[in-house]
Amino acid sequence: MPDDDSAAGMRLSDEQRLDWLRLIRSENVGPRTFRMLINHCGGARAALEALPELARRGGATTPARVCSREDAERELERAQRLGIAVIALGEPEYPARLRMIDDAPPLIGVRGTLSALARPMVALVGARNASAVGVKFAGLLAREIGEAGYVIVSGLARGVDAAAHQASAATGSIAVLAGGHDQVYPAEHAPLLEQLLEHGAALTEMPLGWEPRGRDFPRRNRLISGLSLGVVIVEAARRSGSLITARMALEQGREVFAVPGSPLDPRAEGTNGLIKQGATVVTEAADVIGALQPILGRPPEIPAEEPEPGPAPQREPASDERQRIVALLGPTPVGIDDLVRLSRSSPAIVRTVLLELELAGRLERHGGGIVSLV
Amino acid sequence: MPDDDSAAGMRLSDEQRLDWLRLIRSENVGPRTFRMLINHCGGARAALEALPELARRGGATTPARVCSREDAERELERAQRLGIAVIALGEPEYPARLRMIDDAPPLIGVRGTLSALARPMVALVGARNASAVGVKFAGLLAREIGEAGYVIVSGLARGVDAAAHQASAATGSIAVLAGGHDQVYPAEHAPLLEQLLEHGAALTEMPLGWEPRGRDFPRRNRLISGLSLGVVIVEAARRSGSLITARMALEQGREVFAVPGSPLDPRAEGTNGLIKQGATVVTEAADVIGALQPILGRPPEIPAEEPEPGPAPQREPASDERQRIVALLGPTPVGIDDLVRLSRSSPAIVRTVLLELELAGRLERHGGGIVSLV
Repeated sequence: MPDDDSAAGMRLSDEQRLDWLRLIRSENVGPRTFRMLINHCGGARAALEALPELARRGGATTPARVCSREDAERELERAQRLGIAVIALGEPEYPARLRMIDDAPPLIGVRGTLSALARPMVALVGARNASAVGVKFAGLLAREIGEAGYVIVSGLARGVDAAAHQASAATGSIAVLAGGHDQVYPAEHAPLLEQLLEHGAALTEMPLGWEPRGRDFPRRNRLISGLSLGVVIVEAARRSGSLITARMALEQGREVFAVPGSPLDPRAEGTNGLIKQGATVVTEAADVIGALQPILGRPPEIPAEEPEPGPAPQREPASDERQRIVALLGPTPVGIDDLVRLSRSSPAIVRTVLLELELAGRLERHGGGIVSLV
Repeated sequence: MPDDDSAAGMRLSDEQRLDWLRLIRSENVGPRTFRMLINHCGGARAALEALPELARRGGATTPARVCSREDAERELERAQRLGIAVIALGEPEYPARLRMIDDAPPLIGVRGTLSALARPMVALVGARNASAVGVKFAGLLAREIGEAGYVIVSGLARGVDAAAHQASAATGSIAVLAGGHDQVYPAEHAPLLEQLLEHGAALTEMPLGWEPRGRDFPRRNRLISGLSLGVVIVEAARRSGSLITARMALEQGREVFAVPGSPLDPRAEGTNGLIKQGATVVTEAADVIGALQPILGRPPEIPAEEPEPGPAPQREPASDERQRIVALLGPTPVGIDDLVRLSRSSPAIVRTVLLELELAGRLERHGGGIVSLV
């Protein structure tokens, strides 16, 4: 059961794919900056050429590191050898729900059964130090939701994640990695990951060889929720990674489901808290399947803003204008709207200056149009 | 902190109290029938006189057993000796919330600290075979809700109930009994009950000497919820007595709170189910205290229909009219509205015939204006 009918999409040429890869692998370029650069410069090739000058204007003290053509070629070759498909946002194989999130990765590397990406997905995540009961229940849920036709998405972590993957290996399971395909974490789950590939897949936005660090996991979590119609949290302590996934799911407009637990069990603090905030209570698979049934038929609601070549802006910011905008910024987060108002510059000029600062590694974006200097 | 300002109420004369007691202790007279009889006949004394004839017309095969003056006097004397106050609906000591339920007992027997009846109450009930964690959490909740100024109401059962009473003995706890004051169940909790009397009370609508049977417990549960602003269910299996209390609380417009638990723990099935149906999730006492705070100031919303002397109906049903109404009844429950429509009798006449049948022990009322023949 394919999730929507957007199968007819664009297809990158080999040359374009190389440019896209170089751009997203360049210093200080993330998914949002990637999209802004493409819009600002009119395409990936032009963005690659403009990048060093933009970063210099933003105040970069050393020249911006742009990913070389050779490095990108080497990554694509290695990916091909390892059976990894490198799929661009907008291509027909790119998962339909994932392309709707506003920081969708421009490129994903997928190993395994590509057709699984076209099926509807449910994320199932939870505590690494899950209780025996939590692990058992995660398995029960994953099996039944899997048998109902959904691919189970999770993070390959110990505890709940592993149980969810294991129980849905036969029906389809996608592990989203925080590092490169050759840097499976935890290493002991490499055999489990191989088992998933026959009916499911491994997916990451990170380059081969990338060893995941702490901050890569929350970043990865947005893909777990972004791929899915809904996220089920099985056990989660307060301030746990699973709650980050739940928050991202809410921001992305995904359904959030939580399994209740005893108030005296710290592993239930997070899920009980989610239920208090309005998450759907899950005590059996039917709670999830029933709630998603009505959504299933609907195509994703927010149309993707395609990073298509657009017109370059009329003019570059004048240097005093840039100084005025930078002077309004500091470590305290401020709204871009306020910057426009206070600087008396046009929104396009403010956006360009922020892009320059970002490429220079000097800007932090907090979401919701809020920025600060690093 | 008194719950409302209805302290100024009527006071029965000794003679009236005796009549009320005789009437409620007579055969086939429950709280609802009591109220109907008073309204129908114009007072308790007149109702006692009319009762045998009404039951006969309703088809009673043996003469209706009316409680004798001597039996009622003996009960009041024994109650006095045991320090039990016999309080009538409408009297100032009668708990304000309890008088608002539509089957409020006309008389309650209270032993202990009468002033506790004037304080705001929270019911805390749950499984008899509660887990260690459930018992511990019930105690925690009862202590903190008690310290916040609420009297804790429960049913003196093993498990959650006992833990709730124990933890609130020092701040005020009311045990509602399913039998007479001299028939404490379970007997092993008699010492616990004595502990409660210093700051709280034991309360029942049943006569002295009454040994509680199975069906007396659900009947008792309506008083637990009826006394309280809200009911907290700590652990409850499917189809348990605690769920009956929760259902009654909903029917009475009380808040329902439930403590979540693992879906794999059968003792959490009932509470998780309540949460799915909209009960407020409780993981700490503040969840209860915070939710009740806004209600506390408000007087009970539904004004009590006082069983005051009213005019007797214009005429008795003619015998063919009675036959026509009885013919429309059977073991299948039917609405009183439908009876009025189909019999082409007046609502007053239909109500009178139903009262006769009830006194003859031939009618069952299902609530919501639905009745059937026994």
